[in-house]
Amino acid sequence: MKDLNRDDLEVGYDVPALPGMDEADIQTPCLVLDLDALERNVAKMGDYARSRGMRHRSHGKMHKSVDVQKLQQEMGGACGVCCQKVSEAEVFARGGITDILVSNQATDPAKIRRLANLPKLGARTICCVDDLANVADLLKGATDAGTGIECLVEIDCGAGRCGVTTTEEVVALAKAIDAAEGLTFSGIQAYQGAMQHLDSYEERRAKTQVAIDMVRDAVDALKARGLDCDIVGGGGTGSYYFESGSGVYNELQCGSYAFMDADYGRILDKDGNRIDDGEWENALFILTSVMSHAKADKAIVDAGLKAQSVDSGLPTIFGRDDVQYVKCSDEHGVVADPQGVLKVNDKLKLVPGHCDPTCNVHDWYVGVRGGKVETLWPVSARGKAY
Amino acid sequence: MKDLNRDDLEVGYDVPALPGMDEADIQTPCLVLDLDALERNVAKMGDYARSRGMRHRSHGKMHKSVDVQKLQQEMGGACGVCCQKVSEAEVFARGGITDILVSNQATDPAKIRRLANLPKLGARTICCVDDLANVADLLKGATDAGTGIECLVEIDCGAGRCGVTTTEEVVALAKAIDAAEGLTFSGIQAYQGAMQHLDSYEERRAKTQVAIDMVRDAVDALKARGLDCDIVGGGGTGSYYFESGSGVYNELQCGSYAFMDADYGRILDKDGNRIDDGEWENALFILTSVMSHAKADKAIVDAGLKAQSVDSGLPTIFGRDDVQYVKCSDEHGVVADPQGVLKVNDKLKLVPGHCDPTCNVHDWYVGVRGGKVETLWPVSARGKAY
Repeated sequence: MKDLNRDDLEVGYDVPALPGMDEADIQTPCLVLDLDALERNVAKMGDYARSRGMRHRSHGKMHKSVDVQKLQQEMGGACGVCCQKVSEAEVFARGGITDILVSNQATDPAKIRRLANLPKLGARTICCVDDLANVADLLKGATDAGTGIECLVEIDCGAGRCGVTTTEEVVALAKAIDAAEGLTFSGIQAYQGAMQHLDSYEERRAKTQVAIDMVRDAVDALKARGLDCDIVGGGGTGSYYFESGSGVYNELQCGSYAFMDADYGRILDKDGNRIDDGEWENALFILTSVMSHAKADKAIVDAGLKAQSVDSGLPTIFGRDDVQYVKCSDEHGVVADPQGVLKVNDKLKLVPGHCDPTCNVHDWYVGVRGGKVETLWPVSARGKAY
Repeated sequence: MKDLNRDDLEVGYDVPALPGMDEADIQTPCLVLDLDALERNVAKMGDYARSRGMRHRSHGKMHKSVDVQKLQQEMGGACGVCCQKVSEAEVFARGGITDILVSNQATDPAKIRRLANLPKLGARTICCVDDLANVADLLKGATDAGTGIECLVEIDCGAGRCGVTTTEEVVALAKAIDAAEGLTFSGIQAYQGAMQHLDSYEERRAKTQVAIDMVRDAVDALKARGLDCDIVGGGGTGSYYFESGSGVYNELQCGSYAFMDADYGRILDKDGNRIDDGEWENALFILTSVMSHAKADKAIVDAGLKAQSVDSGLPTIFGRDDVQYVKCSDEHGVVADPQGVLKVNDKLKLVPGHCDPTCNVHDWYVGVRGGKVETLWPVSARGKAY
């Protein structure tokens, strides 16, 4: 077997594009970022948080990218990152991010040891707790590592996942954390994930109000016991204005605003407009090519289930209402083309149904501006699920 | 910022396990292969194909692993690999696989150049064609590279994706390929993807029969014009017995049989039994851990949308009927635990809803046997979508 000379290789094997290349030459399917739109989204959320006296800890679980996170900190004033996995936190810490919240539980002994080692990389390290036994395990981890871990008590304020549901439990956990030398009680994590994608602004407002009331009750009870909350964190792209106006939250944790997706784009703002029609811009696209048009009324494109997640619905086709992505299988998308306007090798920009798990199947973001590839950013924490 | 010493690192950052480790210490979520079950599946399909005088070209798009492919060739007698992307073919070729069918179209100029370079790696290189203009482009690619490409004419026999639908089109394409020096007409690709997952054996049989009739008509018409088909390929885990008995197909292209998944497992064999109850064994699992049990009746596990694809339904929990995976969000799964039998850090083996796109989000297969980690295999072509 003869070795292939690097000169024989094409863009496409390792990377879908190279900086300087025309946008038209990008290999598909791949993720493309409209850098102008991304920067406007990032700056806008930064301005908003600043104007409301809120910190913004941008959610890195969405983009999994050290480069996007740095943009959010430098251009959007983000105070640090939140992420959901210890392995993601390791990537962000090694990438130079110095304020990291794992907005989730670390319970496995090896995960706790890894978490407790993060401060050695220079990172403020914060995690969530919803279980008294876990406090003892985290304390042992911090003690063994000779470091310190900050802990937030997680309240389940409607998402129905991790977190305790009563102020009594919050207080008991906070006291246990506070009593543990090596751990610091730093506040509350209360993200209402279940309502972010509801279309109706009023429904989202009502459900967020329930969360705010739970959190206020807990914060007041803690204060009465001398336990102050440095962080009261939560809020997403569908609710951040509610938490910002609550007087009790002080840190937002928005993720999807930066890229937008089809499922979030459909939700409505207070005036009844879609949030992708003015509030946020689509900055993330799956670039795809027509690879077959053997049937007159449908084009087959090269972005299927290996290039996106369809858990929240099919992608939409950006800027086109003459063609529609109607079916997704492993390697193919079927695009209805009733007028036969597409031809083989035509490219389409898909807005993914759900950005987070879509980004997680790709290795690269191709950053474009003015028709040229400006940069390639690795999806640094792609696959870091453990 | 201080560098983290490698001695400070734990299994979990780069790899979920190490060979020799107890199965109980594997970091979750990750993919686990039951090597005994995998080997039995692979040997069984090999025996079946051999007994029916069929070649088996195992489908590498499912596992995307050079190691699994080599097992299928060495233990299962597979004649080579099929895959769906040129970038996958490059991975298999560089991994030493020497007979490669891209069971899909290559139409982009850069993809064609890359495809035409594969023979330089020592690989027999075959692709599919459904468009006359593409024949000229492939010829130019092979000529420029100084290599040769074998071409199959793709028939759309029911999947509704790529492929032509009439014998006349098949003949026209085959003649054009045959006339192109540098290209070789090698036969027919006819995979009926749309019916593989139908529960009813009889429905699958009827739809496969339509495909078989189309293919026979085309093969006979080609033969009448002096064009023989070296390969008449198709057949999947839900239909391979029909193609094997057709007298016209000579190559099977099964993928999922090796790992099995929940969606395929539900389909019924000719006796009305589920195919995961005797025909094939579950060899692939998503290992997941309980990370929170703050609510009495539900456990939260660490495998969500970043650890699997739910396009074909939620995962099932292997070997348990007392608990059920009922909801999947980005990072979490909700497991109904009505009797409260689970506790934090308990592990569960999930059978993914759909193996192909689930494997595509993971970097590693952890191969286990007898309670020990025996091997780690990279998901070599993970993310190779372009």
